[in-house]
Amino acid sequence: MKFLCSQSELNSNLSLVSRAVPSRPTHPVLGNVLLVADESKGRVSLTAFDLSLGIQTSFSAEVSQGGTVALPAKLLNDIVSRLPEGEITLIADADESEDDSQIITLKSASGQFQLRAMSAEEFPSLPTIEGVDALKLRISLLIEGLKGSLFAASSDETKQVLTGVHLAGTVDSLEFAATDGHRLAVVTTPLQPEATEEEEGKTLAEGDFEGFSVTIPARALRELERMLSSRQGSDTVALYVDEAQIVFELGEQRLTSRKLDGAYPAYNQLIPRQFSRTVNVERKRFMSSLERVAVLADQKNNLVKCTLDGDEGLVSLSVEAQDLGKAKESMPAEITGEGGDVAFNVKYLMDGLKALPSQEIQIQLNEGNQPVILTPLGGLKMTYLVMPVQIVR
Amino acid sequence: MKFLCSQSELNSNLSLVSRAVPSRPTHPVLGNVLLVADESKGRVSLTAFDLSLGIQTSFSAEVSQGGTVALPAKLLNDIVSRLPEGEITLIADADESEDDSQIITLKSASGQFQLRAMSAEEFPSLPTIEGVDALKLRISLLIEGLKGSLFAASSDETKQVLTGVHLAGTVDSLEFAATDGHRLAVVTTPLQPEATEEEEGKTLAEGDFEGFSVTIPARALRELERMLSSRQGSDTVALYVDEAQIVFELGEQRLTSRKLDGAYPAYNQLIPRQFSRTVNVERKRFMSSLERVAVLADQKNNLVKCTLDGDEGLVSLSVEAQDLGKAKESMPAEITGEGGDVAFNVKYLMDGLKALPSQEIQIQLNEGNQPVILTPLGGLKMTYLVMPVQIVR
Repeated sequence: MKFLCSQSELNSNLSLVSRAVPSRPTHPVLGNVLLVADESKGRVSLTAFDLSLGIQTSFSAEVSQGGTVALPAKLLNDIVSRLPEGEITLIADADESEDDSQIITLKSASGQFQLRAMSAEEFPSLPTIEGVDALKLRISLLIEGLKGSLFAASSDETKQVLTGVHLAGTVDSLEFAATDGHRLAVVTTPLQPEATEEEEGKTLAEGDFEGFSVTIPARALRELERMLSSRQGSDTVALYVDEAQIVFELGEQRLTSRKLDGAYPAYNQLIPRQFSRTVNVERKRFMSSLERVAVLADQKNNLVKCTLDGDEGLVSLSVEAQDLGKAKESMPAEITGEGGDVAFNVKYLMDGLKALPSQEIQIQLNEGNQPVILTPLGGLKMTYLVMPVQIVR
Repeated sequence: MKFLCSQSELNSNLSLVSRAVPSRPTHPVLGNVLLVADESKGRVSLTAFDLSLGIQTSFSAEVSQGGTVALPAKLLNDIVSRLPEGEITLIADADESEDDSQIITLKSASGQFQLRAMSAEEFPSLPTIEGVDALKLRISLLIEGLKGSLFAASSDETKQVLTGVHLAGTVDSLEFAATDGHRLAVVTTPLQPEATEEEEGKTLAEGDFEGFSVTIPARALRELERMLSSRQGSDTVALYVDEAQIVFELGEQRLTSRKLDGAYPAYNQLIPRQFSRTVNVERKRFMSSLERVAVLADQKNNLVKCTLDGDEGLVSLSVEAQDLGKAKESMPAEITGEGGDVAFNVKYLMDGLKALPSQEIQIQLNEGNQPVILTPLGGLKMTYLVMPVQIVR
C-alpha cells in the first residue's frame, strides 16, 4: 500500500472516525482505524467500529498501490494532528513479517514515523443493509429533531431503551422522543413542506415513513449530530434500517448503529391534553433567573419554587437554603387559571428551557402533582414534560 | 452597612480576591470574603486570605452607610457573576441576630438574594509591613522574570523552598530562579535602563536591591502574574518585605504572601561555564518536532534522543517505542564541537523550550552526563538547565 494525501484531509477524516473508537477496546483490533487505499478510485477510506457504533469516511488521495492496514487510532491521530500542513505519504512494507505485523511509514516534510500495524483481517466489517429502499430526510429536519430530544435520554447504561431516542413515523410526520423516566422531550417534525415552500420544489423527506419505529442509542445520534453540523441543512441524509441495524449515509460518510431492543414506553399517554392553568413567559429571562436562584438551590435539595400571581401578571422563582439564605426573582407573565405554587427540580426544568427553540414559551399545568408541559410559542412542535416535586409544608 | 455599585465592578473585584480563598478552608471564616464599606472614601474593599496568600482590592461605590461583613466567597461570586449588568445594592441588617449572624440583602433589577453573613471580627487581618521603604519595580520587568522561572518550581508541597521562586538582587540586577531538582530556570533582569531608554527618563526600579534575597511561594506569584497581566507594563509595583512576609502593591490592589523559610540551593554553582559543544537552532521548529516525536515517547519512558550531526548541519530528534514504532525528525542547526547523541526527558526539555523568549536558541553541552544549558539568542538573559538522561546501550 502506498498513497499521498494532504495532512488536513487525513487529519479531519481521522478525527471524525476516531469518535467511534472505544476508549477501552474489548478486543485490541477495535482500538485501530482501518485504512483502505483504492488505486482505481484514487480514494482512501477510514473505518472505526466499536461493534455498536461504526463510522466510515473516505477522501481522495494519489494511490500508487492499493492495500489495507489497521493502525492504532489514537496514536495515528495524535501524530497526524501535530504534523505541519502539506503532503503526507503513507507506505506499508510489501512483506509481512513473521508475526503477521506490518511496519507502516508515514513521511512528511519534517520527518518520518514508523508504526506497527495490526492485521487488517481481524478488523470486523461494518454492518451493511441490502435490498432495502433508502428513506431520505433533509439534514435540517434531522438536526431539529435531535436537538430537541437527545438531551433527555438517560445516561444510565442499565436503563436500556431509555438510553436511546425513539423515532416514530406517520404518513406526514416524524416524531423524536427521549425520556430518562424523570422528564420527556418530544419533537414532531412535518415531512411535507408547507404550501409556500412546495412551490420551490423543496422536499423534506422521501420514502414511506408510515409505521417507521426505531430506538437508536443516544451515543450514535450524538456523533450523527456532530457529522450533520458541518453539512448544509438543505442536503439529504439516507437511512437504511433492518431488524438489528440502522445506517445513515451522508455522501462519502456512513454511520452505522445497532438498534436498541425492546418496546419504547407509550409516552403519548403520559402527556395531559387538558390544563387548568397556563403561563406564557419569555424563555431567556426565565432561564437566567432560574440560573441565579439555582446557585442557592444547588447547595440543598436542588428544588426551586415557582409562584404564579395572575392578578399581578408575575411569575416568581424562589429558593430557600436554610443555612445559607434565600433568593427570589420575579418577571412578567401572561397567566390564566388559578395562582399558586409549584416546585421543580432545577436541573430538569433548566434542561427543557435550554432546548426549547422559541423566544416565548408556554407552561401548562393542572392542580397537584400532575405532569407539567413546556412548549414553544410558535415555530417547531416540541413538548417537554416534567414532573413537579411535592412541596413539604 | 449599605452601598450601591455596578455589577461589573463588584464581579471583577470578587473574581480577583476569590483566588485567595482556600477550596477547603481550615477554619470556616477563611471560606469568606471580607467586605468593608467606607462611607467617607466612597469605596468598598474586598479581602480574601488563606493565612499564606492574601489579596485585597477596592472599588468606588455609593456608600450610604459604612460597615463590615464576611460573606461566603464562592456563593457570593456565583450569584454576582450571574446577575445582569447594572446597579446592585447590598444592605446589611442593622441588628445582629442572637447567634451573631447577620442577614445581607443583595438587590438587583431582577430580584433579591438574602445571604447569611459570618461575624467579620473572626476574619484574620492581612499582614502589614510598616517602617520599611518600598522597593519599586516596573511591571514589565516582573512579568519577564516570572514568565521565565515560575514554571520550573516544584509542585510537590513537601519540597519546601523548591515550591517557590527565589529572587536575588544586586546593585543593578534582579535574578529570578526556580528549580524542582530536575531542572533549573534562571532569569536575570537589569535594573538600570539602557542608555537610549534613559534619555526618555524611563526607570526600571527604585530602591536598594543589593542583598535582596527572598523565596516566594509559586502559588502567590501565579496570582501576582494574573494581576499584573491586566496592567500596563510601564506601571510600577511596590514591594515591602520583612522577616516573614512580602507585600506587593499595585494601586488599589495588594497581594501579601508569607516567605518560604530555609536557604535556597546555591544554583549558580550547578551551571557549567565552559562547554565543548554548542547547537544553534530555531526554537519553534525544534519544539514542534519534539511535540510530534513525543507522541511515541509518551507511551514508554518519556525519553527523546537528540543527535548532532555537525558535518551535515543537522540536529535530529528520535524516539523508539518497542511495541509501537519509531519516529525521527531532523532540522538544520549550526553545530560546533563533536557530534553524537544525548537523551532528554521530553517534559523537561519541552518546558524550557516553551519558556525561552527568543526565535533562535543555543544549546550548550559537554561530554557525558553533565548538565545541558539552553539560552535564548538575543533578548532576555535566561538560563535553562536540564540534566541529560543516560542512554542504555
